[in-house]
Amino acid sequence: MPPRGRRPVGSSDTRQEILTAAGELFAERGFERTTMRAVAARADVDPALIHHYFVNKEGLLAAALVLPVDPAALLAGLDKDPEHAGEALVGRLLGVWEGDPDARHRMVGLLRVGLSHERAAAGLRDLLGRTILIALSRVVAQDHRSLRAALVGSQMGGLLLGRYVLGIPGVRDATPGQLVVAIGPVLQHYLTGPVGGAVAPATASR
Amino acid sequence: MPPRGRRPVGSSDTRQEILTAAGELFAERGFERTTMRAVAARADVDPALIHHYFVNKEGLLAAALVLPVDPAALLAGLDKDPEHAGEALVGRLLGVWEGDPDARHRMVGLLRVGLSHERAAAGLRDLLGRTILIALSRVVAQDHRSLRAALVGSQMGGLLLGRYVLGIPGVRDATPGQLVVAIGPVLQHYLTGPVGGAVAPATASR
Repeated sequence: MPPRGRRPVGSSDTRQEILTAAGELFAERGFERTTMRAVAARADVDPALIHHYFVNKEGLLAAALVLPVDPAALLAGLDKDPEHAGEALVGRLLGVWEGDPDARHRMVGLLRVGLSHERAAAGLRDLLGRTILIALSRVVAQDHRSLRAALVGSQMGGLLLGRYVLGIPGVRDATPGQLVVAIGPVLQHYLTGPVGGAVAPATASR
Repeated sequence: MPPRGRRPVGSSDTRQEILTAAGELFAERGFERTTMRAVAARADVDPALIHHYFVNKEGLLAAALVLPVDPAALLAGLDKDPEHAGEALVGRLLGVWEGDPDARHRMVGLLRVGLSHERAAAGLRDLLGRTILIALSRVVAQDHRSLRAALVGSQMGGLLLGRYVLGIPGVRDATPGQLVVAIGPVLQHYLTGPVGGAVAPATASR
């Protein structure tokens, strides 16, 4: 890399540059082998600045794990047609992931890192639970709201896992349209259907 | 560890001892930092024996990723009540994971490792796709069989992820009975419901 002047501390893009560099390195090398020093070098900033912004490597990872699309924006307006919110949700999710191969590659890398380390899991846990609940707050039924959001998150996470991370042939090769038909009603069930009612102990204990 | 004689090559338990040691070490240290030599030391066998059985570390991981319960046995007999196969499936899956904290801890570790490395993903991909299809072969509807099996796998994987790996509060704190009620109909839908039909391009491209 040719030498060039380091970015000034006050640059409005500095924080984003650091996050981009961190995302690339975490995806390429994993958590353990990514150093703050390497991130600083790639982002062309002083390492002290990374500590200033993100405190430590866990903080940096948590910030880098944030998806390139704001979940609130991604899920906005679903309450206008709440009976089809499930289908719309699958369609939008796939739209983001299918649209940009580079972003997808980076997100798969980040997902792997987030899943592989206990301390790195917090960002994903929040995203698939609390963030979804907040973003879908006007669509989720009034009962069992936390469970509903987490069920939506578990199926969305499972889909991303099966299609993009593991590549299970059946979901890897399906068209987005097929997945909307197959999974849309499931998310709708989780959002507004009967979940978490009382159940006979015999079933629960199997 | 006190010195003791190495197990003889022909011992019928030797292969299992190696897999147990490998499972523990992969879960404790991750893939990169687990060496064949360390596995040999913990299993108390000659390292050459591990190469003989499993060729390399990827082979060892793939073998160690096999769940403690045979999926075919876990899923046996679901065809006797095919309309409730979805509920029974969730109940049995949770039964295995809830039953034994040590086994669960080890499985979470293995899941993390399997998800974190591309070369380690093959075992999980097979388990959540092909293995499920074979085991549920008499329950899965005739159309879109590979997609159906992979959808079941994606939701089961997403549930394990949300409840045991990430610990998303809504699914972490639900009772097994609640999850059977909430997720059972979903797996039933994937097994025998309408999935993967033709869909209008406008929906597919969203």
